[in-house]
Amino acid sequence: RTAFNLNDHPHKRYNPLTAEWVLVSPHRTKRPWQGKTEAPALLERPSYDASCYLCPGNTRADGSTNPQYTGPYAFTNDYSALLNDTPPGSYNENNLLVAESQGGICRVLCFSPRHDLTLPELSLEEIEKVVALWISEFNTLAAKKDIRYIQIFENKGEIMGCSNPHPHGQIWSLNDIPAEPAKETLQQEKYFGSHGRSLLADYVQLELAKAERIVCSNKHFVALVPFWAVWPFETMIVSKRHVQHMNAFNEEEQKALADILKRLTTRYDNLFKTSFPYSAGIHQAPVNDGPHPGWHWHMHFYPPLLRSATVKKFMVGYEMLASPQRDITPEWAAAQLRNQAEVHFKTV
Amino acid sequence: RTAFNLNDHPHKRYNPLTAEWVLVSPHRTKRPWQGKTEAPALLERPSYDASCYLCPGNTRADGSTNPQYTGPYAFTNDYSALLNDTPPGSYNENNLLVAESQGGICRVLCFSPRHDLTLPELSLEEIEKVVALWISEFNTLAAKKDIRYIQIFENKGEIMGCSNPHPHGQIWSLNDIPAEPAKETLQQEKYFGSHGRSLLADYVQLELAKAERIVCSNKHFVALVPFWAVWPFETMIVSKRHVQHMNAFNEEEQKALADILKRLTTRYDNLFKTSFPYSAGIHQAPVNDGPHPGWHWHMHFYPPLLRSATVKKFMVGYEMLASPQRDITPEWAAAQLRNQAEVHFKTV
Ligand SMILES: O=P(O)(O)O[C@H]1O[C@H](CO)[C@@H](O)[C@H](O)[C@H]1O
Ligand SMILES: O=P(O)(O)O[C@H]1O[C@H](CO)[C@@H](O)[C@H](O)[C@H]1O
Repeated sequence: RTAFNLNDHPHKRYNPLTAEWVLVSPHRTKRPWQGKTEAPALLERPSYDASCYLCPGNTRADGSTNPQYTGPYAFTNDYSALLNDTPPGSYNENNLLVAESQGGICRVLCFSPRHDLTLPELSLEEIEKVVALWISEFNTLAAKKDIRYIQIFENKGEIMGCSNPHPHGQIWSLNDIPAEPAKETLQQEKYFGSHGRSLLADYVQLELAKAERIVCSNKHFVALVPFWAVWPFETMIVSKRHVQHMNAFNEEEQKALADILKRLTTRYDNLFKTSFPYSAGIHQAPVNDGPHPGWHWHMHFYPPLLRSATVKKFMVGYEMLASPQRDITPEWAAAQLRNQAEVHFKTV
Repeated sequence: RTAFNLNDHPHKRYNPLTAEWVLVSPHRTKRPWQGKTEAPALLERPSYDASCYLCPGNTRADGSTNPQYTGPYAFTNDYSALLNDTPPGSYNENNLLVAESQGGICRVLCFSPRHDLTLPELSLEEIEKVVALWISEFNTLAAKKDIRYIQIFENKGEIMGCSNPHPHGQIWSLNDIPAEPAKETLQQEKYFGSHGRSLLADYVQLELAKAERIVCSNKHFVALVPFWAVWPFETMIVSKRHVQHMNAFNEEEQKALADILKRLTTRYDNLFKTSFPYSAGIHQAPVNDGPHPGWHWHMHFYPPLLRSATVKKFMVGYEMLASPQRDITPEWAAAQLRNQAEVHFKTV
């Protein structure tokens, strides 16, 4: 019987950002797969689609018309999950039936007028404009005194519930701090309180020294597979500088963010020679909520594919009822991504 | 501007079993769906499939042969996520890279020798035998002193990652208490400590009085859509008697559990005239872990379908990065399930 080691033995890993654990079963990908396979993403789309709600000049679902936009373009979601005229109020019976009103603003952000291009296929300059629009949207929403959290995210690909293939992301902002950023707030402020440094700054330093979970990096950002990754090829982009919000990034950092976004998403596409699906999103400190000195800006990528362009990881029975579980090790996943080229497979 | 109400306004609801919240956007199903549609489940399958790893007499993936079983049949998973010979051990660098060994036993439980029948299509007597086997498996696992939690569950349907259509469930048991039951332990013991009654007993009494979220019930069990349901047609079966583990159910209660399982799953299939996919699982107190007087046996059903047999709810961007979100109200979902017949659509 060999000594316990992370490459061979089932174990759980701790996520210091959320105080949650993931079960890792390194040996488990050997099992045969007779289950569901996904249709791979369509690789060729027209650059303009007359039936798309998001293409420039087209009529949207609510009857309004998109301008002939030429760069990234943001507007309020016609089917917002949060509305800014929600009356405040709450409901409580015996502390067993408990509800509270939620107000907010949901925005849609088209990355490009082109219907056929995804983030890795845009030029660096075009991605810089997306970063700039994220920042200006963030500033506009943060200026509203009742907004406390601004969630910028992208659902990419049909299998991530993306209801329109036109490259776009969303921003949901609200008068409350939702569960995930609330957990990260608690953990980061605790760490900062006892160490005087940010949790992620210390973590990134440790990972850069070890190198085995790093995917790529530049002067201002690191992309890595976290030690506690749940999704097979989950990654995180972390800024080297400890900032609370992305509006603190200077011009050079904004360019560096565009650079790492392009390089990471290109590696993703190259891994299975497909338009790699994921949900990705930016975590940053709450707004209009007092100081959060421990918060350190970062971006999560949660991609579902496991074995190929058509076999994904299902977070189902055990995962829903007990604990998240993964089959391949984060170290192995990082090596796969590190081995990819940074030239998009469609252009070679 | 009308006063805040749960039918029209976005709000969050509190889950007292886990202390988590779900964002509810009642108005949001109006949005058009241009996204992914699922292939509906195949309704006709052969009663025996020579290529199935689980059919009686067939050879399994690991080379062993299934007996000619005639009722439900359990065996140790050939590709277990947890192994019982895992050496103990742990790993820690700076409290940032933290891991711990996990040992356990994973079992597979075929519901029937028939390849073509799912739970609602089995006879009451056959479902009673499934319940009896769950209890005997539970007893065998609980007798092992290093097992602390026993998770009985079923992934039903391809879209729930079920890798084999032969009707079966799984049992993952381990030397640890995973996240979900740990949350429910905390909340139930807290409630029991301050009220001297179980949280779920009080909750079920309140729901029976209100009736609007009840799906169906019998002398010993209630099936309802919880006030805090996350999945569109999520339900929970709760025992009327406050027991910690299912081995406390007497013969009449075991029969009543089979009855409510058949009726609830039949309603699910009838709702969209399909073999309704879900992950379902039993939550009960940890074992070999001292007394847990607050724990109250229950079973969760997490089905993904939202609008039809082919359009599901995606728990993606906002949900992964911020908070779970639902579009239809739990009250509306309960009414739909309550309106279904209890005769399976395939037999009429
Ligand atoms: O054990 P199976 O059926 O091969 O696998 C299925 O259930 C497991 C337990 O919920 C999940 O971890 C897998 O992702 C899923 O595909
Ligand atoms: O807003 P969309 O693209 O219509 O919808 C998608 O993203 C939302 C936010 O993550 C999810 O709630 C939906 O389930 C998903 O289909």
